[in-house]
Amino acid sequence: MSISLADAAALLQSGDRFCILLHAYPDGDTIGSGYALCRALRALGKQANVRCAHAISPLYGFITDRCPPQAFSPQTYVAVDVASLPLLGQNGEDYAGKIALCIDHHGTNTGYARHTLVDPAAAATAELVLSLIDCLGVPIDAFLADCIYTGLSTDTGCFRYTNTTATSHRIAARMMEAGANVARINEAMFDVKSRSRIAIEKSILDTLEYYDDGKIAFITITRQMREQTGVADGDLEGITSLPRSVEGVLVGCTLRENDCGEFKVSVRSREPVNSAQICATLGGGGHPCAAGCRLACPLPQAKERLLSACREALASLNI
Amino acid sequence: MSISLADAAALLQSGDRFCILLHAYPDGDTIGSGYALCRALRALGKQANVRCAHAISPLYGFITDRCPPQAFSPQTYVAVDVASLPLLGQNGEDYAGKIALCIDHHGTNTGYARHTLVDPAAAATAELVLSLIDCLGVPIDAFLADCIYTGLSTDTGCFRYTNTTATSHRIAARMMEAGANVARINEAMFDVKSRSRIAIEKSILDTLEYYDDGKIAFITITRQMREQTGVADGDLEGITSLPRSVEGVLVGCTLRENDCGEFKVSVRSREPVNSAQICATLGGGGHPCAAGCRLACPLPQAKERLLSACREALASLNI
Repeated sequence: MSISLADAAALLQSGDRFCILLHAYPDGDTIGSGYALCRALRALGKQANVRCAHAISPLYGFITDRCPPQAFSPQTYVAVDVASLPLLGQNGEDYAGKIALCIDHHGTNTGYARHTLVDPAAAATAELVLSLIDCLGVPIDAFLADCIYTGLSTDTGCFRYTNTTATSHRIAARMMEAGANVARINEAMFDVKSRSRIAIEKSILDTLEYYDDGKIAFITITRQMREQTGVADGDLEGITSLPRSVEGVLVGCTLRENDCGEFKVSVRSREPVNSAQICATLGGGGHPCAAGCRLACPLPQAKERLLSACREALASLNI
Repeated sequence: MSISLADAAALLQSGDRFCILLHAYPDGDTIGSGYALCRALRALGKQANVRCAHAISPLYGFITDRCPPQAFSPQTYVAVDVASLPLLGQNGEDYAGKIALCIDHHGTNTGYARHTLVDPAAAATAELVLSLIDCLGVPIDAFLADCIYTGLSTDTGCFRYTNTTATSHRIAARMMEAGANVARINEAMFDVKSRSRIAIEKSILDTLEYYDDGKIAFITITRQMREQTGVADGDLEGITSLPRSVEGVLVGCTLRENDCGEFKVSVRSREPVNSAQICATLGGGGHPCAAGCRLACPLPQAKERLLSACREALASLNI
């Protein structure tokens, strides 16, 4: 059931022994939101911990190290930035019926919690958590500012993605004034790549192919490339935007071989080309500018089928 | 002579037939600042044009196309984002004594204009131009918002660099509300690379070398690589930050061969390593985190000298 900000704050005020659940493969928004909420609840004299199905990258040590776990048995479960139970990770369904409050900015939230505070207009869940902390009357210190800024900056690609709003910028300004160490956060989040990521980017650039005067571009990530470079799954973030980032490319596709030898295809396009339409013809779906599908066939055939679908889309637009 | 904001506004109010000078190899800040000022002066009923020694990239067509030149002979010269006369380009010195006002955010401004409005705390000259337009009483329309946002976002690396302030974010919020098409600007400025840039990045990754357990990294850009990929000089922006962006690297060096076969070296470091110190031992200089020098010797020797200097710097810090 949907809940107002004031009622969500009242719910938190009346509870204790909080277990704050992050989504699996945790990103900056779920981590920043979860730890901000944890610290704010502790500031109110309550017990609170953060829980996640996967280990949090040491990159976020500037957050996790400053908020060590407490010993208590959980009573009130709150999920942050988690659109559905399976996104909690393996055994996520075990939490069915147990979660008192979910705070999220995904319009696709399935409403699995008893109370849901969702605002799809928020660029990040961290924006909602900040409103909630303000409602709770907890002052924003440097730690909270670091958490909120981390969530906001990572979910907006450092204020570059189209979900960024004037409100996002105003919050960033406020967090800077509250003591957020944005130089350090920006460096850790946007300025550092692992050696294996650098290595696989080089291999990926070797696979870059242009078709139809450069209107279509493909990159391929094989199992062998992943094994040879030792790149972690979570370390391939954003790579699917590479082919579309080339000047003149209207449809950029990434073919990524999974462990079963199937290809997970990500399609990114520029207006007026519709990625979701392209993927729909191949049994997939998504958004107009970003969509996906699976192709269970060898690479040459997968490329051929994908290229045909892209060409049809361009032809239907007389491009 | 230094001038106050109010006096600079009065100077502009009293002048006419403005020629607004941009720096050579124009970037988003000089272009955004120049065109914003040009449009604001025209809104006051004055004649104004923008002048630049180099052609402005078609990437900025969303600005230049909406402010075509007027026919008149210039009377009042104003320079924006130009720290010294030579930066105006070839024949820059011809403007000596002719420039009534310079608006700039470089602390290194040489004070070549009759009046100088400089604020090194401003993340971009566009921030100062906005204050000036506010002083002049010209309302911020969508075009002015596009110009100011372009200057601000490009000079801050889309709010990622350490020069970004809370004020920068507040201005971004205001420009969004005034109608800036930030989705389009961010896409054009931060999401598109030329095919030749992509091609040379691949070649550059082939040259990436790690030393001393990955604390030092080198990349090399030869004349041959530039010729083979056909990359324009201006299209290599930001490439020098690549080696330092690898996890664990404390000093990242770029050796770039110029047309005379010399190597222009860019050194980027993380604290506590001091780039300026490294370059000083090789006859160059710069800032603690970004410095440069020239090495007039064949590549193997250039690398050897540079590596020695980097190792000395690490050894002196017991790293």
